[in-house]
Amino acid sequence: MAGGLRVVLVAPRNPLNIGAAARAMSNFGFTDLRLVKPYELAFKEARSAVRSRYILERAQVFDDVNAAVADCSLVVGTTAGGHRDLHLPLQRLEAAAPLLNEQPSAALLFGSEKFGLSNDDMSHCHWLLRIPTRAEHGSMNLGQAVAICLYELRRDAAAVNARFAPAPHASAEEYERATVLLLEILERSGYVHERTSTSSALKLRRLARRLGLPAGDAQTWLGILRQILWKLKQPPQS
Amino acid sequence: MAGGLRVVLVAPRNPLNIGAAARAMSNFGFTDLRLVKPYELAFKEARSAVRSRYILERAQVFDDVNAAVADCSLVVGTTAGGHRDLHLPLQRLEAAAPLLNEQPSAALLFGSEKFGLSNDDMSHCHWLLRIPTRAEHGSMNLGQAVAICLYELRRDAAAVNARFAPAPHASAEEYERATVLLLEILERSGYVHERTSTSSALKLRRLARRLGLPAGDAQTWLGILRQILWKLKQPPQS
Repeated sequence: MAGGLRVVLVAPRNPLNIGAAARAMSNFGFTDLRLVKPYELAFKEARSAVRSRYILERAQVFDDVNAAVADCSLVVGTTAGGHRDLHLPLQRLEAAAPLLNEQPSAALLFGSEKFGLSNDDMSHCHWLLRIPTRAEHGSMNLGQAVAICLYELRRDAAAVNARFAPAPHASAEEYERATVLLLEILERSGYVHERTSTSSALKLRRLARRLGLPAGDAQTWLGILRQILWKLKQPPQS
Repeated sequence: MAGGLRVVLVAPRNPLNIGAAARAMSNFGFTDLRLVKPYELAFKEARSAVRSRYILERAQVFDDVNAAVADCSLVVGTTAGGHRDLHLPLQRLEAAAPLLNEQPSAALLFGSEKFGLSNDDMSHCHWLLRIPTRAEHGSMNLGQAVAICLYELRRDAAAVNARFAPAPHASAEEYERATVLLLEILERSGYVHERTSTSSALKLRRLARRLGLPAGDAQTWLGILRQILWKLKQPPQS
């Protein structure tokens, strides 16, 4: 499946967008770029992009959409959607991606920066997809739209649950030693008075237990507390 | 939650990238853009962007990361990852997004185009995220990286299953009428010979049933077949 998708830019005008599309393809491992009637100068300029040059050098140029998608078993157009009668089923990118991924030779069409895909371009499509933008500002930058679609195609749903495990907390013994040290520091500092120190100890223990103290940092913190206590025990300078 | 995320660009150099970040924010409904030590000219130029001007006009400029994230309860840095000892937990965007979404005041930091976030910038972060690019080409365009992160934050997992229902197929009666018409057309065209027409009818019926003929198009196709048959029944021109 890797690299099977054809990314088809119809009448792109801005070399930066062609370069950005190629860069996103390289980032996400797609290689088949096709350009329909690109503004010639734009294509030449785009070729100066460095890391993605291998994609632009292989890119094929076609005179019309029909020729560009001839070998594709599924042709999907992108649209900001909603503003005209599309005559075609329209679905959100999240739902579209699995359908594109299961085809060995799907094409994904992006229209020109200014006008998007024409009705004629769309008549070559099986259906359309839209990126779920706000209704008030649906039109995306071409390079960003390509990047988001390719990201979604490579996105790994299982990775949602592959969060890092929270760092294990210090042991109760370490918490208790820290509490005891802190209590003595606070007594010597005058924050806690000795006659109320029993209730203070309880409050302090609860306070300490609410801290997320990672096991790996416990010895460092105990060392810090011991050092402070040692300093507080020094006789005042004469 | 909407708009709660702070998008923080640290030392951006290219006005097009600042503009592209603002545009993606507008596309996905985020409004709080913060710039740390932007290249001054770049920020001025970026402000000429039209549809996203309201975001750039509100954007706040800070002298350092510390000030930019002071009011944030979660600070997350972005990185292409892997190339240096990061000292911080690193997770993929798919897993990071829910954690960012559940915080009312999270900040997402993007480094400069050339160097990414510095070790000093990262020391202000709780953890790091990476967009799942290819290991061989991890470094993304800044505007595209912002767009992908914001898309993922707004992505609706439930929409994966909200695919359009496949168009209902034509009824068996309509399929059969089409088969009968097609058989007569093929006999009159010489594609099928009358003596073999029983087995041909079976083959044709199976052929027709494998076509995905949408219910809404059945009458149009029957009309087309009737017209062809009518034409084939006309006496040859004298």
